Amino acid sequence: MEKSALNINKGIEQPDVINNNSIQRFLQKKRQIMPVEYYIDGILNGNRTILSQAITLVESTNVEHQKIAQQIIEKCLPYAGNSIRVGITGVPGVGKSSFIETLGNFITQIGHKLAVLAIDPSSERSKGSILGDKTRMEVLSRNADAFIRPTPSTGSLGGVARKTRESMILCEAAGFNVIFIETVGVGQSETTVHSMVDFFLLLMLAGAGDELQGIKRGIMEMADSIVITKADGQNIEKANRAMAEYRNALHLFPPTDSGWIPKVSACSSLENTGIELIWQTIDSYFSHIKNNGFLFKKRNEQSKFWMYETINNKLYQDFYEDKIKKKRIKEMEELVLAGKMSSFQAAQKLFEDI
Amino acid sequence: MEKSALNINKGIEQPDVINNNSIQRFLQKKRQIMPVEYYIDGILNGNRTILSQAITLVESTNVEHQKIAQQIIEKCLPYAGNSIRVGITGVPGVGKSSFIETLGNFITQIGHKLAVLAIDPSSERSKGSILGDKTRMEVLSRNADAFIRPTPSTGSLGGVARKTRESMILCEAAGFNVIFIETVGVGQSETTVHSMVDFFLLLMLAGAGDELQGIKRGIMEMADSIVITKADGQNIEKANRAMAEYRNALHLFPPTDSGWIPKVSACSSLENTGIELIWQTIDSYFSHIKNNGFLFKKRNEQSKFWMYETINNKLYQDFYEDKIKKKRIKEMEELVLAGKMSSFQAAQKLFEDI
Repeated sequence: MEKSALNINKGIEQPDVINNNSIQRFLQKKRQIMPVEYYIDGILNGNRTILSQAITLVESTNVEHQKIAQQIIEKCLPYAGNSIRVGITGVPGVGKSSFIETLGNFITQIGHKLAVLAIDPSSERSKGSILGDKTRMEVLSRNADAFIRPTPSTGSLGGVARKTRESMILCEAAGFNVIFIETVGVGQSETTVHSMVDFFLLLMLAGAGDELQGIKRGIMEMADSIVITKADGQNIEKANRAMAEYRNALHLFPPTDSGWIPKVSACSSLENTGIELIWQTIDSYFSHIKNNGFLFKKRNEQSKFWMYETINNKLYQDFYEDKIKKKRIKEMEELVLAGKMSSFQAAQKLFEDI
Repeated sequence: MEKSALNINKGIEQPDVINNNSIQRFLQKKRQIMPVEYYIDGILNGNRTILSQAITLVESTNVEHQKIAQQIIEKCLPYAGNSIRVGITGVPGVGKSSFIETLGNFITQIGHKLAVLAIDPSSERSKGSILGDKTRMEVLSRNADAFIRPTPSTGSLGGVARKTRESMILCEAAGFNVIFIETVGVGQSETTVHSMVDFFLLLMLAGAGDELQGIKRGIMEMADSIVITKADGQNIEKANRAMAEYRNALHLFPPTDSGWIPKVSACSSLENTGIELIWQTIDSYFSHIKNNGFLFKKRNEQSKFWMYETINNKLYQDFYEDKIKKKRIKEMEELVLAGKMSSFQAAQKLFEDI
């Protein structure tokens, strides 16, 4: 990375106060925005406080903040993309926070820099999104090579996801070369996270009974790896059986677009076993898709996807958020539900009326 | 069904020529549209020729035809919905046409009336959509209780699907109480067909090797039933093994929204074995979702889905089909793919420019 290429220090009015904590306090007090270069400089130098500030701008709904945020993102783009992006999902109770804590500490120990983000909006947080509760990853949150960003607290899934994807770009520009994006595994967010990561990891409990009730159908087939958690003590035998079962099941699945055969393994965050193997799996997957060109193809598709997704969201908003239309749409919906009008007729009438 | 409730014969100008073949020829020659009542009368009386003519109007892109078609659909709606809607998918070579032929003939023998439709646009037909080649279902196509409608030959998947859903309403009003909707199993059409059927049946070949290459990931988890085809002769043992494997795999899947546990069975269209059991499965599924209220809930959701789907399609069309916008969108896409602009920035710029 040639950070000098941007000439980020040229002609910038440096703030008087250099101490980050003071700056942060100052910003919070005054709600003042610094010049774009301040953020870019900070991010490219790996300054975590300034990275946080920039992400706060990304997450803000304020128009001025958004304008600056978009400028920051654009300047960071040339430095982004150099990371392994991993989506991690699993139902509440599967031990996701312990898993991220253990795997996270392992990969920073072997020299990587890790950023942990989330895409579940706050409404779903109570269902088990770990990042609302940072304290559950005690060691990792104090790790100098790890950056944990709690879930944005407001907005729709689409909005939060968009912000997470933008934050990821900033994290990459700040030198984080592994990104974890965490979701809960019970809703739509898995499909969304799938559209922004390279590798999708599904955490599962041993035993195919009630514990699985929470996982939505369709998620299993998206997984590049299934990891059975809590494989320790009395659970080991159950975990081994579960691994064998999932391996059998997965070999019946159609092949993935990447040509990768999804792997099944088990681990214990408590006893710190199986963690290294999981990282090796992710690592060899990444080499695999880098070599066969799938990474390039997939990331391009994702970029396109998000451009069109953003356009479509804007089109929806303009249509559905309109007060008069809203009332009319509701009326039509009721006619459709009562079987008095076909779905298509209703849609057509809406456009004729408006 | 109280067909008299509509007073369909009141005040209708009956065409002079009553013979259906002559009418059809007459219509084809003159491209003349009959009064709405002619179609409704014909459909509610189960006249297959008039049903076909009405579907032709549904499929037409002509504005006048569409207007009449929508009127026909609206009048038919109160008589629709009384059928078991079954989606059938499987890759080319799985024996889909023979399966539909055999199962179709069985269910008409036990007193049902069957309509077979398809949603794959013609471009995908060569990949194995059976309905482009009606002659492959020789017996069924001569069956008086079966109505086979070839795939509409033009249009996008969304457009074709919409027309198929409307045609289904007409078929139901014409007294067909079982509807098969066929797709190829290699594309997006499975998700679409899933949004218009009650039961989703996946045909599979025994052996988890190359034969499966065609099935897209995610389809297996949508299936309410997996049927291994060609379970005859030397294949029987292989089919039995495949059944056991799929059963093991399916019990690992998260439960379905309907509370139904997907079933695995095998059949031979050649030897006419296993067919009755498949129908029993569909039948008991239908009782199950009727009793637990899922049928009502699902159909309501589907109606809503299609209303919004139609609105969104119209919004897309107005935006993306615009010539000036098209050029600008392409330019933005290229900037995004070159990593020179973020997806969101590009989308935003598009709206600013326009």
